[in-house]
Amino acid sequence: MPKVSNRGIATPASPIRKLVPFAEAAKRDGVKIYHLNIGQPDIRTPRVGVEKLRQADMEVIAYSPSAGTQSYREKLVEFYGRQDIEVDPSQMIVTNGGSEALLFTMMTCMDSGDELIVSEPFYANYNGFAKSLGVVIRPITAKIDNGFALPPIEEFEKLVNEKTKAILICNPSNPTGYLYSAEELEALRQIVLKHDLYLIADEVYRDFCYDGTVHHSVLNLEGLAQHAIVVDSVSKRYSACGARIGVMMSKNAEFMQTAMKFAQARLSPSTVTQYLAEGLVDTPDSYFDEVKTEYNERRELLVSRLSAMEGVVCPTPKGAFYTFVQLPIQDADHFCQWLLEEFRHEGATLMLAPGTGFYSTAGLGKNEVRLAYVLNEHDLNKAMDCLEQALKVYPHRVNTVSHDEISAL
Amino acid sequence: MPKVSNRGIATPASPIRKLVPFAEAAKRDGVKIYHLNIGQPDIRTPRVGVEKLRQADMEVIAYSPSAGTQSYREKLVEFYGRQDIEVDPSQMIVTNGGSEALLFTMMTCMDSGDELIVSEPFYANYNGFAKSLGVVIRPITAKIDNGFALPPIEEFEKLVNEKTKAILICNPSNPTGYLYSAEELEALRQIVLKHDLYLIADEVYRDFCYDGTVHHSVLNLEGLAQHAIVVDSVSKRYSACGARIGVMMSKNAEFMQTAMKFAQARLSPSTVTQYLAEGLVDTPDSYFDEVKTEYNERRELLVSRLSAMEGVVCPTPKGAFYTFVQLPIQDADHFCQWLLEEFRHEGATLMLAPGTGFYSTAGLGKNEVRLAYVLNEHDLNKAMDCLEQALKVYPHRVNTVSHDEISAL
Repeated sequence: MPKVSNRGIATPASPIRKLVPFAEAAKRDGVKIYHLNIGQPDIRTPRVGVEKLRQADMEVIAYSPSAGTQSYREKLVEFYGRQDIEVDPSQMIVTNGGSEALLFTMMTCMDSGDELIVSEPFYANYNGFAKSLGVVIRPITAKIDNGFALPPIEEFEKLVNEKTKAILICNPSNPTGYLYSAEELEALRQIVLKHDLYLIADEVYRDFCYDGTVHHSVLNLEGLAQHAIVVDSVSKRYSACGARIGVMMSKNAEFMQTAMKFAQARLSPSTVTQYLAEGLVDTPDSYFDEVKTEYNERRELLVSRLSAMEGVVCPTPKGAFYTFVQLPIQDADHFCQWLLEEFRHEGATLMLAPGTGFYSTAGLGKNEVRLAYVLNEHDLNKAMDCLEQALKVYPHRVNTVSHDEISAL
Repeated sequence: MPKVSNRGIATPASPIRKLVPFAEAAKRDGVKIYHLNIGQPDIRTPRVGVEKLRQADMEVIAYSPSAGTQSYREKLVEFYGRQDIEVDPSQMIVTNGGSEALLFTMMTCMDSGDELIVSEPFYANYNGFAKSLGVVIRPITAKIDNGFALPPIEEFEKLVNEKTKAILICNPSNPTGYLYSAEELEALRQIVLKHDLYLIADEVYRDFCYDGTVHHSVLNLEGLAQHAIVVDSVSKRYSACGARIGVMMSKNAEFMQTAMKFAQARLSPSTVTQYLAEGLVDTPDSYFDEVKTEYNERRELLVSRLSAMEGVVCPTPKGAFYTFVQLPIQDADHFCQWLLEEFRHEGATLMLAPGTGFYSTAGLGKNEVRLAYVLNEHDLNKAMDCLEQALKVYPHRVNTVSHDEISAL
């Protein structure tokens, strides 16, 4: 039998999706599962997009240009313009989801063996893309005690060497919900200029910031036109994860021309879902007002419920729709599997994403999990009832330091 | 300014799409262009797919499973069953077009520096995927005088070394239209078994075979369950190139599990276009009868017109909807650009794909072009009028050997 590639062996299975068989088994047993494990919101996709798709001319469903249709890219220019981000259609490539935008970005910046600095915990699939390309992730560990803020810039400085090609941030962050401040972005701006690195920002959650905070795009950082690359997507913004329409943007013409070669090799993004995406850009502001209010209420509920649980440490996320918390456990993977296989509360259980999958450093995240607040408040409350009960009866529960001790760290 | 990757520099721009700016300039001048350069058919996409999409529940457009929806994969099982190919849903991963299926297949079989043997001329984007992954293509040149049949298997044998991981065929072939015989596939079967290689078959044109010929899938070759991988797509079958729904299939469980890691990293194919694809599987047989009749008439027209032109060598393709021909020219890239920039016949010109882009060996294909017969007969005739006239007035026309001399080669 022929051997699979080393890159295939090295690429991790999705730490979130690998629990799916246990969830399916539980469902077959009639157990209700509250899915807090995946960023799949229950919010309705705006009708303005669905109607545009349904009414589209689909006589011959033809390829679109490799960079995406001109009309969709022009709509995106308007969209970003409303957010005070100036881009033109030549500075965009429409992709099969933010995922492909990340893949093309990594391919364009880095060769096998090149290094990418990322603050951990980070979005688990960064690992998958990096391994598949032979790119080496150099992690810097962020701390729960300051809500996973940007680690001191000196730690980035220490890792920079001739193999370092880029720094990657997710802002606001999946999985922590942390929103980078103007000062943190300024520190990143200076270091990428000093060492001539790319600054890649995954900004797919930009529309969800709370407590009056403001998102700053790396595209607006001064003097970074040649360094800044943004990855974005319709998935979270419009609750249209299954559309698989993303975009990569940069003002660096050489970077975009090189990325276009990868885009041309795969011919085009879906013409069909670009109709949907083009319609979605006309989603009224009132939609975002409602959705942000909804997410904010869920966030407050989740933080309040988690904070009331003995041994749980829960920072307050400022953006996205995740919170990354510490539990009184020693093996998050075991705990999450146990929830699905053995724990039941009123005929239900919950599915969480084990923290380990979000770290590159082995051994970290073992007492942490990510929760996505993508369910309505009633279900979130039920899920929190499950978690509270589970932590009481979990046979491997450990005593942890108290909240006060954590705060003093 | 940070540097782009070496893989980005090495990846070729699409040899077909790089002529687009010249075509756009001609269109701005009011020139009619007959597009024989790209496999974008003018055939209507079957309504049974479009209606399924329009009526789909799109309340929340959610992720699908990473391997594709169960219902679509089950429909595919039926579809392939009707073609006497037995596969089950676990042996399939639904992809963003055949392109992603090719990318994942290469990633799963090969590391950077590994070698892939391909008969040339081959589909130009194989080069793009290989370069982006550091995979080395080892070409074996097929000959126009036998219609680009499989080169002698001894030539494959000579290239096999410890770096060789796979042989890739496109059957029927884009760009040549050649359909591999049972004997040729048997020769390939033996060599991959002997050297324990993967046999990757791009079968996206399987539904278009002419003159009563029959397509043989590598999935049905005896003893190749662990070696055979098929890449397929809805694009050509249903004239739905813009759907971007493909599939990769293998009975090798380790191969599929490894490929699934790449599939998980990009989350899922489009849920929206899987509705379309699922509907398309119910396309009635009468559609294929009509479409094959249509393509066959175009093929006969094209071959007959081309064969009548002085200095043109045109084999008769047995499948797909391309023909790869030799013209009395010395620089196909120049000729194709000249057609767009300078040549006009009754206010029109034609766009062709230069042969050079389909070869890996430098210097080959300079007097060849690929023509896609994706236009109706009226337009094809007009396009042939253009070509005939163009070859008469092209300032760099060269004298070639006669048809008789070619036949005697």
